[in-house]
Amino acid sequence: MRRFASQKARNLISTATTRTRTRITSSPSPISSSTAVLRFLSTLHPHSPDSMASDYSSTPITIDTINPKVLKCEYAVRGEIVTIAQKLQQDLKDNPGSHPFDEILYCNIGNPQSLAQQPITFFREVLALCDHPSILDKSETQGLFSADAIERAFQILDQIPGRATGAYSHSQGIKGLRDTIASGIEARDGFRADPNDLFLTDGASPAVHMMMQLLIRSESDGILCPIPQYPLYSASIALHGGTLVPYYLDERTGWGLEITELEHQLKTAKSKGIDVRALVVINPGNPTGQVLGEANQREIVEFCKKEGLVLLADEVYQENVYVPDKKFHSFKKISRSMGYGEKDISLVSFQSVSKGFYGECGKRGGYMEVTGFNPEVREQIYKLASVNLCSNISGQILASLIMSPPKVGDESYESFSAEKEAILSSLARRAKTLEDALNSLEGVTCNRAEGAMYLFPCINLPDKAIKAAEAAKTAPDAFYAKQLLNATGIVVVPGSGFRQVPGTWHFRCTILPQEEKIPAIVSRLTEFHKKFMDEFRG
Amino acid sequence: MRRFASQKARNLISTATTRTRTRITSSPSPISSSTAVLRFLSTLHPHSPDSMASDYSSTPITIDTINPKVLKCEYAVRGEIVTIAQKLQQDLKDNPGSHPFDEILYCNIGNPQSLAQQPITFFREVLALCDHPSILDKSETQGLFSADAIERAFQILDQIPGRATGAYSHSQGIKGLRDTIASGIEARDGFRADPNDLFLTDGASPAVHMMMQLLIRSESDGILCPIPQYPLYSASIALHGGTLVPYYLDERTGWGLEITELEHQLKTAKSKGIDVRALVVINPGNPTGQVLGEANQREIVEFCKKEGLVLLADEVYQENVYVPDKKFHSFKKISRSMGYGEKDISLVSFQSVSKGFYGECGKRGGYMEVTGFNPEVREQIYKLASVNLCSNISGQILASLIMSPPKVGDESYESFSAEKEAILSSLARRAKTLEDALNSLEGVTCNRAEGAMYLFPCINLPDKAIKAAEAAKTAPDAFYAKQLLNATGIVVVPGSGFRQVPGTWHFRCTILPQEEKIPAIVSRLTEFHKKFMDEFRG
Repeated sequence: MRRFASQKARNLISTATTRTRTRITSSPSPISSSTAVLRFLSTLHPHSPDSMASDYSSTPITIDTINPKVLKCEYAVRGEIVTIAQKLQQDLKDNPGSHPFDEILYCNIGNPQSLAQQPITFFREVLALCDHPSILDKSETQGLFSADAIERAFQILDQIPGRATGAYSHSQGIKGLRDTIASGIEARDGFRADPNDLFLTDGASPAVHMMMQLLIRSESDGILCPIPQYPLYSASIALHGGTLVPYYLDERTGWGLEITELEHQLKTAKSKGIDVRALVVINPGNPTGQVLGEANQREIVEFCKKEGLVLLADEVYQENVYVPDKKFHSFKKISRSMGYGEKDISLVSFQSVSKGFYGECGKRGGYMEVTGFNPEVREQIYKLASVNLCSNISGQILASLIMSPPKVGDESYESFSAEKEAILSSLARRAKTLEDALNSLEGVTCNRAEGAMYLFPCINLPDKAIKAAEAAKTAPDAFYAKQLLNATGIVVVPGSGFRQVPGTWHFRCTILPQEEKIPAIVSRLTEFHKKFMDEFRG
Repeated sequence: MRRFASQKARNLISTATTRTRTRITSSPSPISSSTAVLRFLSTLHPHSPDSMASDYSSTPITIDTINPKVLKCEYAVRGEIVTIAQKLQQDLKDNPGSHPFDEILYCNIGNPQSLAQQPITFFREVLALCDHPSILDKSETQGLFSADAIERAFQILDQIPGRATGAYSHSQGIKGLRDTIASGIEARDGFRADPNDLFLTDGASPAVHMMMQLLIRSESDGILCPIPQYPLYSASIALHGGTLVPYYLDERTGWGLEITELEHQLKTAKSKGIDVRALVVINPGNPTGQVLGEANQREIVEFCKKEGLVLLADEVYQENVYVPDKKFHSFKKISRSMGYGEKDISLVSFQSVSKGFYGECGKRGGYMEVTGFNPEVREQIYKLASVNLCSNISGQILASLIMSPPKVGDESYESFSAEKEAILSSLARRAKTLEDALNSLEGVTCNRAEGAMYLFPCINLPDKAIKAAEAAKTAPDAFYAKQLLNATGIVVVPGSGFRQVPGTWHFRCTILPQEEKIPAIVSRLTEFHKKFMDEFRG
């Protein structure tokens, strides 16, 4: 009942936000936006929050009659804080000066191009040419596009049956593109990759859902997930009706992944009658930013082998490593280098065009490499892919490009390398600056972002702040994040959205704002934090 | 057990097909391909079909331990027949002349551009420019692209925050594009459309899954679906664990949708304890090609209103109407014209960029318009959309283009209209030619394709053919379809994949092959059918 009530409150806030966006042009200013929203709402619905739903009393579906798995699912990256941020952004547009900041800084989501990161030119050239191949033979095209982009577009079109970029492809993706990706994987790992093992998907998320759908039969089926975790996993497990079996990363050792912890949690789950089917590892880590060491990866593979678990390896940040002492190794490479072949270990690796230095989130491209499943099971995965026909072809093409970028000697190679290097080195600098800034705050400790796109600082919140959060019926870290947003326009995601060791509080902050904005972010954050602590230190 | 056995046989065939594709370069010729496959397979696995899976005995997942809902799900449009066709295609490539035909004609799937339909130039120009906006200001661009495509690309980029086509958008899709689509719906219907009601999706399929996920709690929840139906519905209901409640379209009245049949099936389902939650209507029909009359649509709306059902309106073929006496009306327009407003009826309309005259299947664009759900439920739909972040931006842009194509006075208007008219009039001619040809075959009757992209003829199969099918452990219409494929290279989908009145047999054949190939298809089909009937007439 309490969950329903808080769910309702949340719905009210976001619904009202949507409404205010269209109806309010000036907004009451310094009070908290949710208060403003609820206050505004009460003028519309003076009697009870439920009266809103009752307008729809002659329609058949209510919150109490929908699939309860949907209700249970949560996805904090686009949750309440973002809804409030969107309202504030509209306020600023409609009524400049209405808040103590002049823009919203979205540090909630790994969405680089929304924060002015420019796309890689070569990739976009090829995509544009494949979208409109009839210009390929025109003379003007050579003035607009690089020679190797034109050549690559021809190559790709030749790989597509009938050169039809507007046709559904093979359910796993265009075979020629899968060949290219497989070669890219081989070049990366030094071990054979089979194009028939690749399933191209609209970003990595549908691939994760597909595997959860395959593996989860009931709530007695468990999936081991890191805590903190990227909430796609908890959401997908909830939607498919399974049980998330948590294993805690050790914050003190830089978010270390300890095998003893895996063993302990597996045993505990088994003792509760949970059939644990798979282990999710996110490497580099999201939201935690650590990069696993090779020896640790070997232990993980050994653990999965011994315990009969499918290893679900989220490797979408494989290009995002910022520290010289760490290097990305795929779990496929690790497994093969240990001597485990196709028939020895079940391993799925997820990759995406949304991350890396390219950050092409809007293109929704990605793939999973599925190895170590028997042909009967593989056929079922193929069937799941078939039901949705295929992933979008531009995303498929882009997935082939990221795994096979320009090479030395290609016309675009130098400009491509310069674009790539500029983005990655800037990300590394931003990560370090933000990490240092966070560590300088009272009561805040922050591990380094060795990779990925996030920092996940721990905030030691004063008791008074925790009590104030309780009074506001919100989690303490959500309380902190809301106050931060309302004071500075900086949007972060509360740690509770990723789960965390009970009694600890965190937030996830991306390293993606433009480099020239980082100093302002640091000073706003520092100033806010000082005031917050002064207010709540007790 | 029997289902498992047939599942296994199917898996064996398709797995073996994959293997033969890489290993066999010349192929034994006139025997049926599945026989060839099984024969080849037996050389690899002399002992038992199960030995194939046992190679993977040290991996944890078997066909018996995956989610049984996945096993239950079937999707015939890309089923066994297509796998055999792909094998034959490879045979023809590796060994020309190995079969009595020189190409495979894919009439199994509504995939126009795979059969050489050309994309609409204006749409592709805009997509290319949005993919690579940095060429927009270059002088060469004006020589390559039409002025209104350049202007439209600028407009669209202005609607995207930061002009970032590589960023994740709002979970429902870019607001400006939703505004455009809403205007297009208003122009089509003459009733208001709210951009906040639109959820842009990667084709229509994910939208259908999202609604099934929302509505289905357990196998006691039923969804009324037409029989024959597009197997996305049966697959999605199976995957989400619900019950498909069939209502039969009346073949004798041109696939008429009778309210008495709906009432009868609803009552029957209720008597079995099924909570029927929604009614699926596909208009124009897939696989049946009928276009509903306005009066009939009003009855359907009234039925949903009276019985408290959500109306799920698959309207992806709204541009595909080929007969002068029928016209497409959206269910939203019908409902509003009856006086039912937003709060009176729960209605979801699905639209896609894959169909119509544009046929952009590979772009995976589409949307659903969700009306008549209370804000709490709406919020849950939003959350489901959020978990997958957003649909691909090219698909979103294309969805806005199909709902707002060039207008009189625009530079592209005439060429656009000519392209559109050429495609639609050719489709109408192809539909009529194939319909007449089918009706001229012994024991075959075929309703007209008033709309959509399919014919669904009824074949009155001789007893001897039915017995032969039984002996081959396959459905009689699948037996026919396989024989047709092996003799002619024509790929159709057996009616059993769409369900049909028990004891009747059909197949679905698209009207999409190039117009110049239609005469050859007609003669090959006619010749095959005559031989088939001569062989089995008994």
